[in-house]
Amino acid sequence: MDLEELIRRIPPLDEAAMAAARARQNRLTKPPGSLGRLEELAVQLAGITGQALPRIQHKVIAVMAGDHGVVAEGVSAYPQAVTAQMVANFLRGGAAINVLARHVDARVVVADLGVATELPDQDPLARALVRVKVAPGTGNIAQGPAMSREQAVQALLAGAQVVEQELARGLDILATGDMGIGNTTPSAAIAAAFTGRPPQEIVGRGTGLDEAGLAHKAEVVRRALAVNRPSAEDGLDVLAKVGGFEIGGIAGAMLAAAGHRRPVMVDGFISTAAAMVAVALAPQVRPYLIAAHHSVEQGHGIMLEWLRLQPLLKLEMRLGEGTGAALGISLAEAACKLMAEMATFDEAGVSERA
Amino acid sequence: MDLEELIRRIPPLDEAAMAAARARQNRLTKPPGSLGRLEELAVQLAGITGQALPRIQHKVIAVMAGDHGVVAEGVSAYPQAVTAQMVANFLRGGAAINVLARHVDARVVVADLGVATELPDQDPLARALVRVKVAPGTGNIAQGPAMSREQAVQALLAGAQVVEQELARGLDILATGDMGIGNTTPSAAIAAAFTGRPPQEIVGRGTGLDEAGLAHKAEVVRRALAVNRPSAEDGLDVLAKVGGFEIGGIAGAMLAAAGHRRPVMVDGFISTAAAMVAVALAPQVRPYLIAAHHSVEQGHGIMLEWLRLQPLLKLEMRLGEGTGAALGISLAEAACKLMAEMATFDEAGVSERA
Repeated sequence: MDLEELIRRIPPLDEAAMAAARARQNRLTKPPGSLGRLEELAVQLAGITGQALPRIQHKVIAVMAGDHGVVAEGVSAYPQAVTAQMVANFLRGGAAINVLARHVDARVVVADLGVATELPDQDPLARALVRVKVAPGTGNIAQGPAMSREQAVQALLAGAQVVEQELARGLDILATGDMGIGNTTPSAAIAAAFTGRPPQEIVGRGTGLDEAGLAHKAEVVRRALAVNRPSAEDGLDVLAKVGGFEIGGIAGAMLAAAGHRRPVMVDGFISTAAAMVAVALAPQVRPYLIAAHHSVEQGHGIMLEWLRLQPLLKLEMRLGEGTGAALGISLAEAACKLMAEMATFDEAGVSERA
Repeated sequence: MDLEELIRRIPPLDEAAMAAARARQNRLTKPPGSLGRLEELAVQLAGITGQALPRIQHKVIAVMAGDHGVVAEGVSAYPQAVTAQMVANFLRGGAAINVLARHVDARVVVADLGVATELPDQDPLARALVRVKVAPGTGNIAQGPAMSREQAVQALLAGAQVVEQELARGLDILATGDMGIGNTTPSAAIAAAFTGRPPQEIVGRGTGLDEAGLAHKAEVVRRALAVNRPSAEDGLDVLAKVGGFEIGGIAGAMLAAAGHRRPVMVDGFISTAAAMVAVALAPQVRPYLIAAHHSVEQGHGIMLEWLRLQPLLKLEMRLGEGTGAALGISLAEAACKLMAEMATFDEAGVSERA
């Protein structure tokens, strides 16, 4: 599989399945439209899957991890070692994403796209880690490109490979997640590159910067853009120059899922940056994307607007890992169940509008 | 149990449990505050239950049904018979609330507080109906009071009784739901009575009124207030003059749940009107209430503001039945599981902030 093929095989949504879903919504025992976004979501899922009554049984949360050379600029409140430590936490089931995955009955798949620190391989649990490392951490985007164009392609294909593997085990919906100390900085740079908005409107506090830290981070993003001059017309160029390995992996996973008619539940700031890369590479992936939530990270709203996605949830979350997407999975499942299981007016003997 | 006792026994939240929950939140492997509303919610649930690590196992959605004399004014798009037909649909498991209850593993309890039409009693499923009817439908509030003051007390106590019965079967969280053709009209009248805002700012389209229907409904609410002159200082007066039996039942259920330190997930427009009645009767019930969602029904925002409640979800829903509250249950459960199951920094060997 090459990148061109990954992009080319994404089909348009199935209009017939969407029409059938819409017709059914109006026969169910409720005022038309009264389930709001859950009705729209069910129709979208019908179009994505090509089934009038889609069923979400196998739910996969792919958490992609990678490190970032730009942490040398002091853009994060946490040390770089935390990326690998949190990967170990994911594998042991102790992180927020593990708890939420159990809550929504999803399985977590953790992939190393570019963690800088050595990951444990003695631990029996470590065998669960998907090892598709492109390189141990990106270059410092404040001084040069994050990676080569070849590495960007490699990251995209690695992410796609994770999805291909999981499809064999059953995958009805993909939720994206990320782990990478410092990764709100490349994500903000990606967002600034595509939208053309000034970095200070996009950078946020990440894991907890103060005012001075925030101003410094905006300056770092400005430098990254000035040094690298990424082309907004070229998704691969933006990913290579100011992106990250896990961001590329997430974007590739999105393309692969869409290629198999699987819906993609997009998590917060980092996953949304990856979605921008995916859409820049393949505009036809956009209708496969569902924005799970609106993060408190500044700039997320600008990114969602550029993508023309309306988030389902707004719970003031800013953790990443796929935590927002996990909650979104539950809403997608609810939307499908409502459409499939509710009685129609005829079945229930309920009178319609006077 | 009388109303005075129902009100008197509601305790303040447990500050020690809340402090313990807050302390734990800051030890979990995530940046402090990064789970946003889910962290606040877990702390609130600790205060409500008096347990630092509350557990939500038994989830009950109480759907209270009643009819409304004001439908004679032509305020609803559906005929009154639909109330009883939908009660039958609930009992057979075919309504939206049944699907969502199964999705979040909650049990639905359906109570008849004041349905006008005869309900089936031959059907074996009908045995599940909780029969606490105050009267077959309220009076027309555009011409006089909805009910007597005695009937208002009776409705409140009937709702409390439903909760008392369910506690015996296990109830860790109560979600409220409603069914009653025409019940957005008394709910809007309640909201206007308490907030003093003009009816046209509060009435909404309900199940689907057009512009003319909306204007007429506002006029009906104006008449109801002019004819009855409910006193905003007296919750029982508002309920009796412009309320409904199911609205009183929901308010009574809220008071009963709080009296047993159980959290209350408040559904949309009708349940929020009931919450206003409950808070007017017993201000100490307020911290037990969790607003599940922001309905598209006009005026709901005004009501939530008056209650000082911030809704968890905003999904453009307007169905009632407890559908928003069902989704809210899942978030409350997630919040508790995150607090209880996530590893701490020490446990996971993850470094803290530099």
